[in-house]
Amino acid sequence: MAEIYDRVALIGLGLIASSMFWAIRRAGLAGEVRGYARSAETRETAREIGLCDRVCDTLSETVEGADLVVLCVPVGVMGDIAVEIAPLLKPGATVTDVGSVKSDVIAQVRPHIPDGVHFVPGHPLAGTEHSGPRSGFAELFDNRWCLLVPVEGTDPAAVDRLRRFWEGCGANVDEMDADHHDLVLAVTSHAPHLIAYTMVGVADDLRRVTDSEVIKYSAGGFRDFTRIAASDPTMWRDVFLSNKDATLEILGRFTEELFALQRAIRQGDGAHLHDYFTRTRAIRKGIIEAGQDTDAPDFGRGGGKK
Amino acid sequence: MAEIYDRVALIGLGLIASSMFWAIRRAGLAGEVRGYARSAETRETAREIGLCDRVCDTLSETVEGADLVVLCVPVGVMGDIAVEIAPLLKPGATVTDVGSVKSDVIAQVRPHIPDGVHFVPGHPLAGTEHSGPRSGFAELFDNRWCLLVPVEGTDPAAVDRLRRFWEGCGANVDEMDADHHDLVLAVTSHAPHLIAYTMVGVADDLRRVTDSEVIKYSAGGFRDFTRIAASDPTMWRDVFLSNKDATLEILGRFTEELFALQRAIRQGDGAHLHDYFTRTRAIRKGIIEAGQDTDAPDFGRGGGKK
Repeated sequence: MAEIYDRVALIGLGLIASSMFWAIRRAGLAGEVRGYARSAETRETAREIGLCDRVCDTLSETVEGADLVVLCVPVGVMGDIAVEIAPLLKPGATVTDVGSVKSDVIAQVRPHIPDGVHFVPGHPLAGTEHSGPRSGFAELFDNRWCLLVPVEGTDPAAVDRLRRFWEGCGANVDEMDADHHDLVLAVTSHAPHLIAYTMVGVADDLRRVTDSEVIKYSAGGFRDFTRIAASDPTMWRDVFLSNKDATLEILGRFTEELFALQRAIRQGDGAHLHDYFTRTRAIRKGIIEAGQDTDAPDFGRGGGKK
Repeated sequence: MAEIYDRVALIGLGLIASSMFWAIRRAGLAGEVRGYARSAETRETAREIGLCDRVCDTLSETVEGADLVVLCVPVGVMGDIAVEIAPLLKPGATVTDVGSVKSDVIAQVRPHIPDGVHFVPGHPLAGTEHSGPRSGFAELFDNRWCLLVPVEGTDPAAVDRLRRFWEGCGANVDEMDADHHDLVLAVTSHAPHLIAYTMVGVADDLRRVTDSEVIKYSAGGFRDFTRIAASDPTMWRDVFLSNKDATLEILGRFTEELFALQRAIRQGDGAHLHDYFTRTRAIRKGIIEAGQDTDAPDFGRGGGKK
């Protein structure tokens, strides 16, 4: 694949940025990739494992001459970074981000972007429960969606170029309005994460009762919850605080439904439960058909009938 | 491995029974395995795929002469099956089950077990979201726990024999008291399943708002929830109805915690959220260390740094 940007700057070197670097390198999407992390330890690790062509100690060295600047920091500090890099941005450059919330990030970042610089917010829908510079891998974005959320008046050519960049990283790209993005993500990601965190917290309280049995016998549903609830605490704190309204709206609906099901259990209303569970099963089929998960009978544990 | 039972009868031919058959065959644990399913269609499928050495049309043919009879039916009908098979059981035989709830199953089944027949309730902590005779595979129980819940006065030799049988199927075996089992499982499996069903139901309601986007962009937490919420509706209806008290107790605690976190989001209390998420992360480490899940950075999607 041809180079799409001459120089890319990755600010923040966690799971997403490190995966971006390996994906950029895999497809040859950039002439040079510079990376920056606030923590000296993270920069040290990045140098040790060869993450980025150049790991910089300052934002100015990182952003200097970059055609694409990617903000890969927690949503809560996007605005602070925007303030710092604004005077350093090259005319004609594109600034994008990878935050899980869009309206709040746009409100934080947009006022600081100078004239002549393109701002195209983005969100790759990909991740694992791991974080830090060592957690990235080139395939993270393969066949995943990356949503671009262009603000009014953005140059379509800048959006198109960023689209081709993400496609080069393996992703499918769609455009979406910021508020709509935040509602959809509250349903598909933010509320489920809070719920998983909550359930794992409940189990933690009960560990004092049941010793280590909750961990030992954690087959089934709970194990999946613990994986979700192992995600980066800082990133998720910021997501909930910056997508407050949509998250609380969805959690309110969730609680209503949960109470209705609890009541059915208490009253022994098996028909209500069975109908509900049959309906939810159909949604799973939709996801498999949309190619967003595997239907392997053993979850890729290497099994299969012998 | 040597034969442990001369003849095994599997009653109900879903995910667990079909996996048991392939595991029994893999290790040569039984001379003959007979299988029965109430539905003619299921029996037909079983014959077509070679599931069981003999698929029987009646319970009496299935149970006749069996040294081990395994009840693999939904928890709600265990008692009915026990009534039907009681007069057919061979003296010295062992009856066990694979239900996810133990106190209720014991109350249903035990009164019907004749003198001279051993009843050793069991529960393999293994499953996928798939169901039916085609869903089984020999490796389902490998390195998973199987909990035996012997009732008072059970012959230790019968328990020991069943233990060796499950070990032959690849499982690790532990013994546990029935009430304690039901509480631990309410935490690790039953409450998480209800919560996942609920969240997927909420998303289904919102589909009318967001079209198919909830499915299309279902990366992250929600996708895992849909997998859990695709589990067999009849099985889970029965689990919730028969482990009502423990499930409602855990859901009550869950709701309390969720409300506290919602309040922290509403009030912008980032410290509370961050502390909570840091604590839940530690539990995940415990599960990885206990060997109950994989820590592969890409969830087995075939990635890794290039």
